[in-house]
Amino acid sequence: MSTLNCTHSCFLETNWNHLEDFRCLLIYPPCSCTRLCLSQSVIATMRDLKKKDKLEEAAGDAYGKTMTLLPLDVCSDESVKQCINSIKDRHVDILINNAGVGLLGPVESISIEEMKRVFDTNFFGVVRMIKEVMPDMKKRRSGHIVVMSSVMGLQGVVFNDVYTASKFAMEGFCESMAVQLMKFNVRLSMIEPGPVHTEFEMKMMEDVSKMDFPGVDADTVRYFKDVYLPSSTDIFEAMGQTPEDIAKCTKMVIESDSPRFRNLTNSLYTPIVALKYADETGGLSVNTFYNLLFNFGPLMHITMSILKCLTCSCLRRRTISPN
Amino acid sequence: MSTLNCTHSCFLETNWNHLEDFRCLLIYPPCSCTRLCLSQSVIATMRDLKKKDKLEEAAGDAYGKTMTLLPLDVCSDESVKQCINSIKDRHVDILINNAGVGLLGPVESISIEEMKRVFDTNFFGVVRMIKEVMPDMKKRRSGHIVVMSSVMGLQGVVFNDVYTASKFAMEGFCESMAVQLMKFNVRLSMIEPGPVHTEFEMKMMEDVSKMDFPGVDADTVRYFKDVYLPSSTDIFEAMGQTPEDIAKCTKMVIESDSPRFRNLTNSLYTPIVALKYADETGGLSVNTFYNLLFNFGPLMHITMSILKCLTCSCLRRRTISPN
Repeated sequence: MSTLNCTHSCFLETNWNHLEDFRCLLIYPPCSCTRLCLSQSVIATMRDLKKKDKLEEAAGDAYGKTMTLLPLDVCSDESVKQCINSIKDRHVDILINNAGVGLLGPVESISIEEMKRVFDTNFFGVVRMIKEVMPDMKKRRSGHIVVMSSVMGLQGVVFNDVYTASKFAMEGFCESMAVQLMKFNVRLSMIEPGPVHTEFEMKMMEDVSKMDFPGVDADTVRYFKDVYLPSSTDIFEAMGQTPEDIAKCTKMVIESDSPRFRNLTNSLYTPIVALKYADETGGLSVNTFYNLLFNFGPLMHITMSILKCLTCSCLRRRTISPN
Repeated sequence: MSTLNCTHSCFLETNWNHLEDFRCLLIYPPCSCTRLCLSQSVIATMRDLKKKDKLEEAAGDAYGKTMTLLPLDVCSDESVKQCINSIKDRHVDILINNAGVGLLGPVESISIEEMKRVFDTNFFGVVRMIKEVMPDMKKRRSGHIVVMSSVMGLQGVVFNDVYTASKFAMEGFCESMAVQLMKFNVRLSMIEPGPVHTEFEMKMMEDVSKMDFPGVDADTVRYFKDVYLPSSTDIFEAMGQTPEDIAKCTKMVIESDSPRFRNLTNSLYTPIVALKYADETGGLSVNTFYNLLFNFGPLMHITMSILKCLTCSCLRRRTISPN
């Protein structure tokens, strides 16, 4: 198994004039797939402010003017409280929950402690932030909470068992919260990207391909390294989006007058979710993924190669609008 | 918020002659909704063997013959390992993961630590058991893992945010595992009950209705106590199943030659899942639940009362077969 903390630069000018009395957007971390800037007040947070140089450079003139940087560790109740308390009147109009770590590999090789660390960022980190910001939003009868989920929050993917579980948990929590929040005029939106091209994601794939997996049977390791990883790389290259695509989608979600609850960023992933929704027994999804992986590997490789050609040239329109 | 450890007696004679070389079924806990007995080797487990009297009585002649009792705390890596090591050859043919705790109430009133305790049983407890039993099943190219999930693993329910999240996590984990396990001829089945009539569930509803929720705003407490709880009680009474219904469904799943991956036990819940699957944006589900709860409360009460009459008398056929 391998863990991933992704980071990437992508700033977009964002217009939220449609929000009355807009005062503050809080985004954490400002790295990763989404950076939204910066004509009005944005608070970006980082766990370790010593690493702020790249962000400062990318933010340019906005840094220190419309964009403020605060320290935040979403795995600490105390840090979350301090961060929100340090904001004027604790007033956050838009909260973008953008932190996430990956975990890839056979379950046998992953300890419960490692799994818990993934959940502490991907699930409990978001819950900590929502718990801290939501009461004030409810009081004001205004606000928008955006959660960076994943297509793996909607459909399980082999050898991504724990990451998938953490994103499913987030989807379930937010599905439950959305009904209550609607009563308080607080919006809740999920963003569900598929694979995103970042150097960190590619590095994670490379790293795990070189790892040994002591304690895991030889067949499982072979299926992981020789069947799953090549297929995953194919899919990644053919269907992956750029961080800019995800930022654009997020921008549309927060600028919308009536944002959707769910926002799949990649239309190429729609059939995967449709498969699940077409058969309540789950058999269609499980069998299809099994066949794609274990029976039609070469066919899938060819299909992905064709798709890669098409999406790199004539069909490069992979970001869907949430509206 | 309130936590729940449910317990109930329900034994069913089970036939697993279709499994070649059947040696052992492990079920934990044997209380709650499912007890499967006992013509062949069954290992039931309990956290505290001092509480075994009721189980012993219910098992009757089988106790100590075909049914063995072992101590097991699924929240402890060590206890899980000891339990499986104490089984002859560590040979488990069928593992029924049946432990679960509930958590109900406004998120603002629940600490992260309380949430983590729910996840430690409902999610990590099951993962611990699967991690311990699965490698031997994979080696033998035979076995069946059954997970007691919930309809709340498929659709979020207001004020059940954390319980829902833990069951969603389980669904995501198992969706991912199922594809890999199929390659090893190991079966994985989810069972998704709706509400089940146990004294503990009714007690939990009563307890939370009397609780104060310090730190939660008055409107949220009012929506929880005066809107959600009465609706929930209506639904519970009109659509709830008995523990026997759930045990029968589980029996059918483990006796089946080709068990489904997903098994909703209550056909009255099918429309709820269909709503979600009919609209990928999530708007249909969120708006429908919002309207049912906040706009059509009295209409829903009448509908549930009618349904209650019907299901108590002429239409008492609420358990669906997984086949």
